[in-house]
Amino acid sequence: MTAGEPSATAFVPGHITGFFSAHTATTCSQAGSRGAGITLTDGVEVTVTPGSGLRLNGEGIEMLPVADVCNRLGVDAAVDANTSLPLGAGFGVSGALALGTALAANAVFDCGKTENELITLAHCAEVEAGTGLGDVVAQARGGLPIRIDPGSPSHGRLDGLPARPQIEYVTFGEMSTEAVLSGDTDQLTVAGESALSRVLEWPTIDRFMTASRKFAADAELLTDEVADAIDAVDEDGGDAAMAMLGNTVFATGDGLSAAGYDPQQCRTDAGGARLLDG
Amino acid sequence: MTAGEPSATAFVPGHITGFFSAHTATTCSQAGSRGAGITLTDGVEVTVTPGSGLRLNGEGIEMLPVADVCNRLGVDAAVDANTSLPLGAGFGVSGALALGTALAANAVFDCGKTENELITLAHCAEVEAGTGLGDVVAQARGGLPIRIDPGSPSHGRLDGLPARPQIEYVTFGEMSTEAVLSGDTDQLTVAGESALSRVLEWPTIDRFMTASRKFAADAELLTDEVADAIDAVDEDGGDAAMAMLGNTVFATGDGLSAAGYDPQQCRTDAGGARLLDG
Repeated sequence: MTAGEPSATAFVPGHITGFFSAHTATTCSQAGSRGAGITLTDGVEVTVTPGSGLRLNGEGIEMLPVADVCNRLGVDAAVDANTSLPLGAGFGVSGALALGTALAANAVFDCGKTENELITLAHCAEVEAGTGLGDVVAQARGGLPIRIDPGSPSHGRLDGLPARPQIEYVTFGEMSTEAVLSGDTDQLTVAGESALSRVLEWPTIDRFMTASRKFAADAELLTDEVADAIDAVDEDGGDAAMAMLGNTVFATGDGLSAAGYDPQQCRTDAGGARLLDG
Repeated sequence: MTAGEPSATAFVPGHITGFFSAHTATTCSQAGSRGAGITLTDGVEVTVTPGSGLRLNGEGIEMLPVADVCNRLGVDAAVDANTSLPLGAGFGVSGALALGTALAANAVFDCGKTENELITLAHCAEVEAGTGLGDVVAQARGGLPIRIDPGSPSHGRLDGLPARPQIEYVTFGEMSTEAVLSGDTDQLTVAGESALSRVLEWPTIDRFMTASRKFAADAELLTDEVADAIDAVDEDGGDAAMAMLGNTVFATGDGLSAAGYDPQQCRTDAGGARLLDG
């Protein structure tokens, strides 16, 4: 980046999905997932300048949704992203990169899009790449988003749980979103629909955690490490569940540290994706 | 408030409407306004405990929407609110009090509502009291909200301008929202619809400010003080408009201070209404 070159930076919160159901549709803006999750103050900062290429924490990488967002906006952008969140571990990093690129590139290249148009664009890029179904719309809203309908803001309704808990998390390794989503998602979707009904019946953080735990078991996605950690937190009187889709456990309050783990700690993100002051 | 008593605090950003059109409907959740505005980091902190009465900056006041929110939730709440924003000057303080009370009371009394349910409840309380039409849904979203459809989140769609400008404002006195809204709003609504079309055509902050200025003139709501201030900022190369509905001028960047005024300064609120950490 050269001095005087136009530049914009967006922050996009990480997003842990507790449970979800997958929904296909004829257009990418109507396809997506229903479900609920937690957005995190730990997130991704995405800086865009004119140029080309994507760097994540200083290293050049390729990521289809980011390239797709730039194509859809018709811009040649150099994207420089930084995050403390691990990739492929259920934190919505690819969604954050796509959405952050859309917000920052719109500002740099004066594309004249609204927030919903940019969210739809990033959502479509994720859905078509198969890297995520619901992270982008959740990350745009912030808080504890409930995806009532699948799809982008012009099609899908969002609601939220009115709570802002502290969150702890531990990652045991990667899990491929593409591999799970490209397989048979029928069992997962039945479990996800049931979890969503239970949360909408009594929309509190406690109910969300219980429904998320049951979903991971019913959808047969639990890994041994996550199951052990959930049990350990439970024995200590805490509340933990699995991040979808990652080999990651998360807990409210100090659930994981109280159970003897050495977790990352953050808070619920209040505001959702946003441009940072220049 | 006694030690150990349950308590919750919500922050709700102030909201300046740049232009709007008024829309009636058979249900309060479908009635409201279309338009666009700016949410502010200057806002209202609302603390709820069991009890009764509303205090604003330490003084007991009565405000219909707040009492109505407590009634709709079926709770006996003492509401203690603090703000640096003036009442009746176009900052959405009554909407903030209603929404903040809904969010905090839901937490204290464990009412089990979702965010959208609480927003709808506060929106209805405002609409029925005649104190506002669109502040509550805008304050819930944060940023620079565009109200595409009138009504609460379950009926009305919101979008947003992807920008986060610094804001300056000066208030010259009160203006009664009830008096304007209870009069003939036809001319105002034609001007508001035209302004919204122009902003959706090219959704940037510059276009929003131009459309807002034209709206104030076309709707014949400009006061002399505000007109003078807008002219002074314009002569200095800045961009100012009138806050609807208040005898208040606002500008982006340092428009008002550069023109020799002594304004309040704040930023665009990124996150919308939220519970604060207990």
